[in-house]
Amino acid sequence: MHKIENLVVFGGTHGNEATGVEVLKLLEKRNYFGRNLNLIPYFANRKAYDLQKRYIDRDLNRSFTKEVLEKGGYLHEERLAKEIYDKFGNDKNLIIDLHTSTANMGKSLVLTKINNFNLKLISFLQDIHKDLKVFYWEENEDLAFLNSISPYGFAIEMGPVANNIMNCKIIEDTLVLVEDILDFAEKYNKNMLPELNKEVTLYQGVEYLYYPKDEKGERFGYIHDEFQGRDFIPLSKGDRLFKTYIDTNLEYKGEDGLIPVFINEGAYYPKNIACCLTKKITVSIDE
Amino acid sequence: MHKIENLVVFGGTHGNEATGVEVLKLLEKRNYFGRNLNLIPYFANRKAYDLQKRYIDRDLNRSFTKEVLEKGGYLHEERLAKEIYDKFGNDKNLIIDLHTSTANMGKSLVLTKINNFNLKLISFLQDIHKDLKVFYWEENEDLAFLNSISPYGFAIEMGPVANNIMNCKIIEDTLVLVEDILDFAEKYNKNMLPELNKEVTLYQGVEYLYYPKDEKGERFGYIHDEFQGRDFIPLSKGDRLFKTYIDTNLEYKGEDGLIPVFINEGAYYPKNIACCLTKKITVSIDE
Repeated sequence: MHKIENLVVFGGTHGNEATGVEVLKLLEKRNYFGRNLNLIPYFANRKAYDLQKRYIDRDLNRSFTKEVLEKGGYLHEERLAKEIYDKFGNDKNLIIDLHTSTANMGKSLVLTKINNFNLKLISFLQDIHKDLKVFYWEENEDLAFLNSISPYGFAIEMGPVANNIMNCKIIEDTLVLVEDILDFAEKYNKNMLPELNKEVTLYQGVEYLYYPKDEKGERFGYIHDEFQGRDFIPLSKGDRLFKTYIDTNLEYKGEDGLIPVFINEGAYYPKNIACCLTKKITVSIDE
Repeated sequence: MHKIENLVVFGGTHGNEATGVEVLKLLEKRNYFGRNLNLIPYFANRKAYDLQKRYIDRDLNRSFTKEVLEKGGYLHEERLAKEIYDKFGNDKNLIIDLHTSTANMGKSLVLTKINNFNLKLISFLQDIHKDLKVFYWEENEDLAFLNSISPYGFAIEMGPVANNIMNCKIIEDTLVLVEDILDFAEKYNKNMLPELNKEVTLYQGVEYLYYPKDEKGERFGYIHDEFQGRDFIPLSKGDRLFKTYIDTNLEYKGEDGLIPVFINEGAYYPKNIACCLTKKITVSIDE
């Protein structure tokens, strides 16, 4: 029977997301003896953290490409990605990558791989955390997330919290999720999982919504206060999305019922992305 | 009679505080014709803004020292400070410097110079904005704030908002304050100020409160969730301030009734400052 040998918890994958690094410190101070798997806290990008930057040369959480993992690379994050992959890139490891967002993501997961293990883990967590939501973005070569190095795992995404800021509640909520994941893995290894809900609801990524641009191609305006913080709430035609510098409100013209996430995420400003649009889907767990 | 010739509004003094820069864009798009003074929006540190950093070489809002203003300097912000001082350093200018905080500062001002003009302006604003609070930090050579270049003016401090993030409500609240200040200046120039409350309440800075340190001298823990966001609320002995990595809550042991501001301000992390402590004082406006 398949067993999880290590729960590897990554913090500081984005150097300006301080929460993960604080959670690693808490995990290191605690006592998790007597478990049937190892808990490995791993500080992913210490150099970027020291400089309070998301990354040094390229986004580490987009660097786990086939090419980098096979051949390595010269950029700082390419070297880190290869090193992490060589250490932990196999199905004995459950990979949890700790992130935060400036958007009102609440307590959420970013899932890239649908399989029975991940779905059971989500179902287990949602039974404890009724407010836990799952953003599903199907794995592809462009994403190249850290957690792609094993079939098992996902990212935890908590928000809103400012970059480089420690927020007690966000730190503790993240820690509790990690401890519940450890608990799941131990029960899984013992084949003693409780009865779980057989259906899991996911918010599947569909497309990006972009900021308006002016005639020079520059961002023109910002997220409307009627839209700010409304992550996971369906959109309707006519909803106000943006305010512009000339007192105009720009409205939503797309399909009714699409659901925005990552509204006003700072890391998306350079790409001009205002939010991601998703559709709610339900997937079943096979026996 | 003394008149204000220019209202000079500075944005981007700290490059990672995006709000001020957005407010400048809004001011530039609007029409303030027919006023008896000039409105001058001034982008203070464009280079730091482009790099999403508080500053390049040294904090611009601590660079208006006697030495820099007399002799100039080689650092990026020293050159900016000298340039700004040479352009606007006189009592014809009302200086408003736009800032934000990651702390729950609400709608607040940072005042460094008590004089009748500034007190009247504050009294005028508080009559419109009942929630407007004033943090008073007496000017001295160490502070060397941008607004020290004229006797008239102060900083606007809005929060909480993440660095490098645009928040619609914070942007608009700031804009409204600037427009009300413009309105005051015009009425002042016409000698047509309305009847004002003759007393103004200030929160005078007394001392800093520091994060706890471990035996290696490193920060040990973070702001307690019972303390987070409680800016402008008086402290009592025994209030929980910090959580540490070994599940201990550290409590307040100081004087009862001191009032914290700038709780969990990110820019203070490098100095290990958890917040500033203040005392409430009342000052009178002379006739």
